[in-house]
Amino acid sequence: MLNFVHDIPTKVYFGKGQISHLAEALMPYGKKVLLAYGGGSIKKMGLYDEVMKILKAEGCQVTELSGIAPNPRIESVREGVALCRAHEIDVILAVGGGSVIDCAKAVAAGFYYEGDPWNMIMNWDGDGRALPLVDILTISATGSEYDPMGVISNLQEQEKIGAVFCYPAVSICDPTYTFSVSAYQTAAGAADIMSHIFEGYFSKTEDSDLFEGIAETVLRSVMKNAPIAIREPENYSARANLMADSSIACSGIPEYGKEGTGWPCHAMEHQLSAYYDITHGVGLAILTPRWMRHILAKDPSVTPRFARFARNVMGLSGTDEAALAQAGIDALEAYFVSTGIPMSLGAVGIDRAHFSAMAAKACRGGRLSQGFVPLDETDVEAIFEACL
Amino acid sequence: MLNFVHDIPTKVYFGKGQISHLAEALMPYGKKVLLAYGGGSIKKMGLYDEVMKILKAEGCQVTELSGIAPNPRIESVREGVALCRAHEIDVILAVGGGSVIDCAKAVAAGFYYEGDPWNMIMNWDGDGRALPLVDILTISATGSEYDPMGVISNLQEQEKIGAVFCYPAVSICDPTYTFSVSAYQTAAGAADIMSHIFEGYFSKTEDSDLFEGIAETVLRSVMKNAPIAIREPENYSARANLMADSSIACSGIPEYGKEGTGWPCHAMEHQLSAYYDITHGVGLAILTPRWMRHILAKDPSVTPRFARFARNVMGLSGTDEAALAQAGIDALEAYFVSTGIPMSLGAVGIDRAHFSAMAAKACRGGRLSQGFVPLDETDVEAIFEACL
Repeated sequence: MLNFVHDIPTKVYFGKGQISHLAEALMPYGKKVLLAYGGGSIKKMGLYDEVMKILKAEGCQVTELSGIAPNPRIESVREGVALCRAHEIDVILAVGGGSVIDCAKAVAAGFYYEGDPWNMIMNWDGDGRALPLVDILTISATGSEYDPMGVISNLQEQEKIGAVFCYPAVSICDPTYTFSVSAYQTAAGAADIMSHIFEGYFSKTEDSDLFEGIAETVLRSVMKNAPIAIREPENYSARANLMADSSIACSGIPEYGKEGTGWPCHAMEHQLSAYYDITHGVGLAILTPRWMRHILAKDPSVTPRFARFARNVMGLSGTDEAALAQAGIDALEAYFVSTGIPMSLGAVGIDRAHFSAMAAKACRGGRLSQGFVPLDETDVEAIFEACL
Repeated sequence: MLNFVHDIPTKVYFGKGQISHLAEALMPYGKKVLLAYGGGSIKKMGLYDEVMKILKAEGCQVTELSGIAPNPRIESVREGVALCRAHEIDVILAVGGGSVIDCAKAVAAGFYYEGDPWNMIMNWDGDGRALPLVDILTISATGSEYDPMGVISNLQEQEKIGAVFCYPAVSICDPTYTFSVSAYQTAAGAADIMSHIFEGYFSKTEDSDLFEGIAETVLRSVMKNAPIAIREPENYSARANLMADSSIACSGIPEYGKEGTGWPCHAMEHQLSAYYDITHGVGLAILTPRWMRHILAKDPSVTPRFARFARNVMGLSGTDEAALAQAGIDALEAYFVSTGIPMSLGAVGIDRAHFSAMAAKACRGGRLSQGFVPLDETDVEAIFEACL
C-alpha cells in the first residue's frame, strides 16, 4: 500500500429534508450570497423557491448566477467572478448538479485570481484561496459535492480542463431532489460514478484491500440501484444509494494507497465533450469497454485484474482467466446498453474527423504514458475507432 | 437509507515516514506541547527520541504526561488537565495506541471543563471545546485516530465510560510503528476493529448498500491481514491494511444510513474491563459469537442477516439459511481461536461473581432495549454465562 494523505473537510448533510440545515451552513460566512444554478429545473421542482424563502428569512442579499450549462463554460466562470467582486460576495451557494458545483468552485477560486480565470485553469495556478462554497446537489454523478475538482469548458478553444479549486464547506445531499432526473441522465450519471471507480481500480497496486473493496462495493451498488432508479424514479432507497455512491466514488478514497493511473477514460472523454459537447457520462460509458478491451489486448499480463473485476463486480465465475476477463467486459457493456445509453460515437453524432487532434490533446503532458497500461496517441485513436 | 451527517475534520497522513509532517501539523497551534504516552514501548522502538528531536528542532517547550495505562484511568486525565493548565499548553501530541489517544482527548476537553473531569465524562457535558490534538498511532485497534470518542476507566467506581470529546486535528498513521505489536495484541486489536463493524452491521436497516459493503470489506480485510501480521510482524502490507481498517471501522461511516444499535458488545465488554481490567479486544472477541448465538436464538427472524454475513464475509455458501447463519458464527469463533485469543472468560480470570451487577450496568439508561435484537439484564447475564 502506498502512502496517502486524507484531508476532506466537507461536511455532508445527507437525506430527506436536510435543507433545514441550509441557514446554519451559510451564516458563518456572511449574508451576501451568490446563488449559482443552471437552467429551469430547480425552479420547476420548487427548490429555487424553497431556497429563496430560507435566504430571505435570514436577511441575505442574493445575487444570481444562472444559466450555467452542462459542461460549464468559462464565460459563466468569468461572469461569476465579476458578480462576486461587484457585490462583495461572502459565500457561494451552488444549487444543481456537478456542472453548477464545478462552475461555482472555479468562481470561488477565480475570485482571488488576478487575471482571466481561464489562465488559472489552464495553468493550475490558483493559490489555494477560495470563497466559501455551500452546495445543494440535484443529480448523482460527478461527485463534485465531495471533491475539490472542477471541469470547465472553453468551446472556442475546444478545451475541457479539470483543475483543483476547493472543497465545498458543506454539501446538502437530499436524494428526493434527484427524483425528477430523467432516465437518460440517471444512466449517464451512474456511468460517470462507475468511471470514477474504474479509473483508479485498474492500477498496478493490488494490496490496498480496504480501498479496493470500497471501489468494488460502489460499482455493485451503482449497478444494483441505477436500473431501479431508471424504472422507478421516485424510489428513495435507490436514489439515496446512488447519491452516496456519487460522493465516495470521486473522493479519492477508492484510490488511497494505489499508484496513479492518469485517469485515461476521462482524458479521452474530455476531448469528446470539448469538441462535441456531449453528455460526459455517456461519453465515458461508450469509451470504457473499448478502452478495457484495448488495454487487455495490448498487455495480456493485466488479465488477472480483469478476471477479478469479472468475479467481484460482475458476479461471474469460471476457471479460464482470459475468458473470464473478456466476459466481464462484455457484461459491463451489456449493462450500459440495458440502461439505455447509446453505446457508439456515431449514435451521439461523432465521426472520425477530429480523432487525431483529440488523441493528441488527450495525451498532452505525458498524462497517459504512465499508469496501468500506458497509452499513446495511436492507442487513443484506435480506442476512438472502436467506439464508432 | 436513513439520514446522516458526515463531518470528520481529521487530516490523516498515512504511510511510512509520514512523521515528516509532524512539525507542520503542530506548528499552527503553538509551541507549548503536552506529549502524552503510555509505558516504555515508544522509547524501546526509538519513536520517543525521534519525536523529541523534531520538537526540539522546532523550539517546542515539551511537558510530558506519561504512564497512560491500557483502559486509561481518570487519574491520568486529571493529571493531564492540571499539566495543561499549569504549563499553558497550546497543543496535545498523543503518541501511542487508542488508550493514549483516548486519554489525550479527555484531557483536551477536560481543559475547558470546570470541575472534575470524571463528572464531564459521566454526564457527557463537555461544551464541545477542546485543545487541539495531534496523534501518532502505534497500534491498529480502537480507531481513536479517526473518531471523536474516548473511553475512560474509573477502577474505584468500577466504571468504564465512553464519551464524545473531540476529533484529532491530525493523525499520523505509519504502519511500521506497529511492527513491534505482539501477536496477542495484534489479534486483540483486530478483534476490536471487527467488533466496531459488527456493532453497526447487525442493524434493522438493510438498504444502505454502500455502507454495508464498506462494513463487509473491512471485515474481510481484517480476517485476511491479521493472520499475516501475526505470523510476519514486519509485513508492511498487512500492517498497513489493518491500520486503514482500524480508522474506517470506528469512524461511523460503516453505519451511515442505518438505524442505531446501542453497540451491545461494547456495553457488555466495558463491564468486563471495568471490573477485571482485561484487554478490550479480547473481551469483545469472547463475547461476540456468544452474543450472536443468543440473539439468533432469541429472534430467529434475524436469520437472513446472519446468512448474509456467512456468505459475504465468511465466504460460506449453502441453501439452508438457518444452517448457514449458525455456520457463519462458528467460523467467526474458529477465526478468533486461530488468532490465539483465549476464547472464554475463565481463561482471562473472570467468574460469575459480578455477572448480575455487570449486566445491570450494561443495560443502564435503556441502551440495549432498542437496537437489532433488544437485550435486557437476563439476556446479558445469559451471554456472560455462555462465555464462561
